[in-house]
Amino acid sequence: VTVEETCIANALAVWNTNIARAEKLFFSLQKDQLETEVAPGKNRLVYLWGHLTAVHDRMVDLLGFGERVNPSLDAIFITAPDRSKDAPDASEIRSSWEKINQRLAEGFAQLTPEQWLAKHSAVSAEDFAKEPLRNRLAILLSRTNHLSYHLGQALLAKH
Amino acid sequence: VTVEETCIANALAVWNTNIARAEKLFFSLQKDQLETEVAPGKNRLVYLWGHLTAVHDRMVDLLGFGERVNPSLDAIFITAPDRSKDAPDASEIRSSWEKINQRLAEGFAQLTPEQWLAKHSAVSAEDFAKEPLRNRLAILLSRTNHLSYHLGQALLAKH
Repeated sequence: VTVEETCIANALAVWNTNIARAEKLFFSLQKDQLETEVAPGKNRLVYLWGHLTAVHDRMVDLLGFGERVNPSLDAIFITAPDRSKDAPDASEIRSSWEKINQRLAEGFAQLTPEQWLAKHSAVSAEDFAKEPLRNRLAILLSRTNHLSYHLGQALLAKH
Repeated sequence: VTVEETCIANALAVWNTNIARAEKLFFSLQKDQLETEVAPGKNRLVYLWGHLTAVHDRMVDLLGFGERVNPSLDAIFITAPDRSKDAPDASEIRSSWEKINQRLAEGFAQLTPEQWLAKHSAVSAEDFAKEPLRNRLAILLSRTNHLSYHLGQALLAKH
C-alpha cells in the first residue's frame, strides 16, 4: 500500500463513517418524525435528508461517474427552501439515497490516486492549472464535511 | 509536488476553510449572543466554542506537537455538559483558540506525508499494525468533520 493509497483510504473511511451515521438516523425515522424541525422555524429532517441526497447525486456528475440518478431532487431540495415544494415520500428519498451512494461507492473503488487528484467536472482545465486542489478529492472531502454539518443539525431533533 | 503532498494539502485546505468559518462566527459574537442556545434546551454557543477549542487542544497532544496549551478546558467543555461549570470569558476562550490553532498550524507545516500517515499518540504500535488508518491524517480529517458538525449547529443560532 502506497502513501497516496493510504491518504485516499483515510478520506473514504471518514465518508463511509458519516454515511453510516446518516443512515442510522434517517432510516429509523417514521413519517411524522421526518416532519420535525431541527430548531424552531428551521429545516425539517425530511428536507435535510433530501438535500443531502441531491448533493450526493451531484457528486456522481462532478466526479465523472456517469448520469445522475435523480436530478429532479435539485428543484425540491437545493434550489428551493424547505416547505416551498412538496417533498417525495420517505421511501422515494431512501431509494434515491441508496442508488446514489451505491453509484458513488462503485465509482470511488475504480479511481487510482492520480485520478482522485485530477480535476473534477465543474472546473476548467485552465482554472485547474492555477488551482490544482480543485480535484476529485476536494469534492469528497468537502461533501463529507457538508454531510457532517447537516448531521450536527439533524441530531438536535433526534434527541 | 507529489501525489501524496497534494492529498495532504487538500485535507489541510478543508481544515483551514472550516477554521475560518468558525472564526468568522465566534469572533463576531457579543457576550450575550454567546449565551444563545443552538436550539431550545441544547448547547449554548459559548459551550460549542469552548468545546471545539478543547478538542483542538487535544490534537496538539495526539499529533505529537508538544504540550497542550490549556488542558483545563477539558473539565468544562468535554467531560462536563453545558451549564454544569462556569465558562471562562470569551476573551480567554479566544486567546486559547488562537494559541492552539497557531500551534497546530505550525505542527502541520512540519510534517512530511509519511509522518502524516504514521500513528497518532493514542494508538499503540501493536494496534496500529492491525489498523493502519489510525494515523495523524485520520485525526485531522475526523476533527475537521467534528468542527463542521458543530458549525452546522452553531449557525442555526446565528441567523
